[in-house]
Amino acid sequence: MRFKAVDTEIIEQLKNLLGTESVFTEPETLKEYAHDETEDLYYLPELVVKPSTTEQVARLMRFCNERNIPVTPRGAGTGLSGGALPIYGGVSLSMERMNKILQIDERNLQAHVEAGVITEVLIDEVAKLNLLYPIDPSSKGSCFIGGNIAHGSGGPRVLKYGTLRDYILNLEVVLPNGEIMWTGANTLKYASGYNLTQLMIGSEGTLGVITKAVVKLIPKPCYNLLMMASFPSAELACQAVSAIFRAGMTPSALEFMERSGIEWVIKYDDIKFEVKNHIEAYLLIEVDGNNLDVLRTDCEKIGEVLYHHKCEDILLGESANEKDELWKIRRKMPLSVKANSVYKEEDTVVPRAELPTLLKGIKSIGNKYGFKSVCYGHAGDGNLHVNIIKDSMSEHDWKTKLPLGIKEIMELTVSLQGTLSGEHGIGLIQQPYMNIKFSEAHLQLMRNIKQVFDPKGILNPGKIFN
Amino acid sequence: MRFKAVDTEIIEQLKNLLGTESVFTEPETLKEYAHDETEDLYYLPELVVKPSTTEQVARLMRFCNERNIPVTPRGAGTGLSGGALPIYGGVSLSMERMNKILQIDERNLQAHVEAGVITEVLIDEVAKLNLLYPIDPSSKGSCFIGGNIAHGSGGPRVLKYGTLRDYILNLEVVLPNGEIMWTGANTLKYASGYNLTQLMIGSEGTLGVITKAVVKLIPKPCYNLLMMASFPSAELACQAVSAIFRAGMTPSALEFMERSGIEWVIKYDDIKFEVKNHIEAYLLIEVDGNNLDVLRTDCEKIGEVLYHHKCEDILLGESANEKDELWKIRRKMPLSVKANSVYKEEDTVVPRAELPTLLKGIKSIGNKYGFKSVCYGHAGDGNLHVNIIKDSMSEHDWKTKLPLGIKEIMELTVSLQGTLSGEHGIGLIQQPYMNIKFSEAHLQLMRNIKQVFDPKGILNPGKIFN
Repeated sequence: MRFKAVDTEIIEQLKNLLGTESVFTEPETLKEYAHDETEDLYYLPELVVKPSTTEQVARLMRFCNERNIPVTPRGAGTGLSGGALPIYGGVSLSMERMNKILQIDERNLQAHVEAGVITEVLIDEVAKLNLLYPIDPSSKGSCFIGGNIAHGSGGPRVLKYGTLRDYILNLEVVLPNGEIMWTGANTLKYASGYNLTQLMIGSEGTLGVITKAVVKLIPKPCYNLLMMASFPSAELACQAVSAIFRAGMTPSALEFMERSGIEWVIKYDDIKFEVKNHIEAYLLIEVDGNNLDVLRTDCEKIGEVLYHHKCEDILLGESANEKDELWKIRRKMPLSVKANSVYKEEDTVVPRAELPTLLKGIKSIGNKYGFKSVCYGHAGDGNLHVNIIKDSMSEHDWKTKLPLGIKEIMELTVSLQGTLSGEHGIGLIQQPYMNIKFSEAHLQLMRNIKQVFDPKGILNPGKIFN
Repeated sequence: MRFKAVDTEIIEQLKNLLGTESVFTEPETLKEYAHDETEDLYYLPELVVKPSTTEQVARLMRFCNERNIPVTPRGAGTGLSGGALPIYGGVSLSMERMNKILQIDERNLQAHVEAGVITEVLIDEVAKLNLLYPIDPSSKGSCFIGGNIAHGSGGPRVLKYGTLRDYILNLEVVLPNGEIMWTGANTLKYASGYNLTQLMIGSEGTLGVITKAVVKLIPKPCYNLLMMASFPSAELACQAVSAIFRAGMTPSALEFMERSGIEWVIKYDDIKFEVKNHIEAYLLIEVDGNNLDVLRTDCEKIGEVLYHHKCEDILLGESANEKDELWKIRRKMPLSVKANSVYKEEDTVVPRAELPTLLKGIKSIGNKYGFKSVCYGHAGDGNLHVNIIKDSMSEHDWKTKLPLGIKEIMELTVSLQGTLSGEHGIGLIQQPYMNIKFSEAHLQLMRNIKQVFDPKGILNPGKIFN
């Protein structure tokens, strides 16, 4: 046995070490922490720990490291790759109580936050000061910023504002041996040795437990406008995406949605939206800035590109209400598709002009193996969420043919210079495809880096690679 | 002896392996590669290798790794921290022949380049297509993009466009054992295991030899305007910097210059510029965008902030010529100060609102130890270049007192949540200060990462840490 099982003695010791109020062993609690938003995966932890301070995290890690007890850090449990699942049991380390915004530094345009702050809470707080934290994943209303950092989460505004990693200046982390350290400095530039901040981002809680972060804020643009453009084919919509950038425009969001995705939203939610017969795909395009006239001109210019790509019709959202209604269609899509059928989600990402080829390939692979897919996502980044739905597929085909199909999708993605995941991470469920993207030498480098930080392999074991 | 000395047999073998035309042993050539732009440091390599292909780099690395011969990768030799100096002799690996722009991908807004491409050549080539690669260090006319990546180089446009690391999508590297690998994917988003691209950036050629890069391009803004604002005190100028951002403005450049810096430029260069008696500091502020009226309004708004901070006068550069003349003052500053006196340059960086405290502290430390400094730099990023000039300081004081003063400057920088270097790197000369910023545990993590990539320690040995 690689890990030590948690017995009553260990539980008592942990309660002494961390306080009774931080350690949970009730079956109902354990069940709650046995899943995240990834399919129907279920792995029971042996206990749940909810620390309130970094020092408690450090004490926990030191204790578990000495005794070979696995620890799986957990944000809000909104992950889509199984990253927070305690697959070897042990401790589920929930960051939910470390939920304080410690400081919004208006002089330096930075926020200092604990890892358990809900992303939208931070966004709303800084917005009150006319500041913007532009990283807003679909789950922003519940996900934690610590989890976002651990997974390199994205959202719809990456194409203009850059990825999460451009907004994380410094991290407080607890290493598996209990050492507490800040990974960098609170500066916009950093050329002082290996950048451990950047290494931590996207490491999925396998190198250290992120306890605090210093994030960069920017002035909040005063205005935005939203357009919903309809296309007779998904390929034409995808082609328009890269043409918009080539025409010199940089929208603040550029989302792609297939017709079927919108149909599921209309079916499962109270959304008023008419999908015309011959329309196959939509682009939702946002522009933002400080001058409304300029934004209107931007919309006109983008409109020209869209019509050039056979766009049928453009709906303009100007009022807050109109914009909300349009965004709702996109935001509701993941849950609507999930409500409709057993499904499996892939998070493909390619250079954005390769989207038409990727989409066509996915449909053709689906035809070959007999599955349907609903595709939508951050087209401006080349990041396409592929929701494969079980629908009428037999259990046997779902279990045997689907993995072959997904493997082919991943091979296609990599052949287009893309990668396995754009913002969901590898976690547990993308591991079988790692060798499509990475050579054995590359994987071994990653394993050796893991070994540097976590020689005993107790921190989130079994994630990214085995 | 840790490393094997290069003898005639090794030279013959290398000529056979790489071709005679790639291997140089003439004393004049060796001398050329014994220094970079860092003070008067001088370390002779035993031979210089100029490969033309990645495969040649791989063969060289495999050969040297097997025989314990140190290899020091070198860009254009414009570094300011001694990163390219072969302090243990061995091979100086110059990337100058790998200077091809392989592709400018207009569909995906990416460029594929070899490591030896001069940064300005890339900037100019993509500008012809109305595209922008916004990372332009002062040495852009001669420095290589590979060296920029290795050092996490910056330049004046980071404050609006982000750092170099936001523009590097994927890297081809040769590991010390000769393995060739791409570190990531050609995508804007990446959540597929540890981000080795980001780890390579700023690793100063100690983990792998960067041979190719895929960089992100963005649409080039149509217009820019430039303002030169004069202040009666350096502190007031620095205070204005963070106030500009807080007022909702994001300039595309915001440079700070002390009076004395401008005086040296006027003295050593053919620059027409009048420095008024009571003026102590200047800010050079650029805004860019696609609408000239909006930019004029931006300038007015910034002007209000400046005058609120007791700005005396604002000079507006509108024509290309006027703008060039103003930029020239800033760009000539490093060489003018260098021409004027023996000097030592520090590359302090702090959160931008701490600039006034940093500057005041530097002057007071200078008074204590008896040295003068000329300060200028990327104030919008909190990145202040401190040029300490020897002037009339005795050789004895320069050698004994200066290191104490620099140590205090670094302590101050770190206490302000800053770090040792913003864009020049640690290299050789900032190593004595590493323990001011980093705990022993932190340093050991970095050393262990080095060990993962370079177990024999042959690649750029003695840099960042020992």
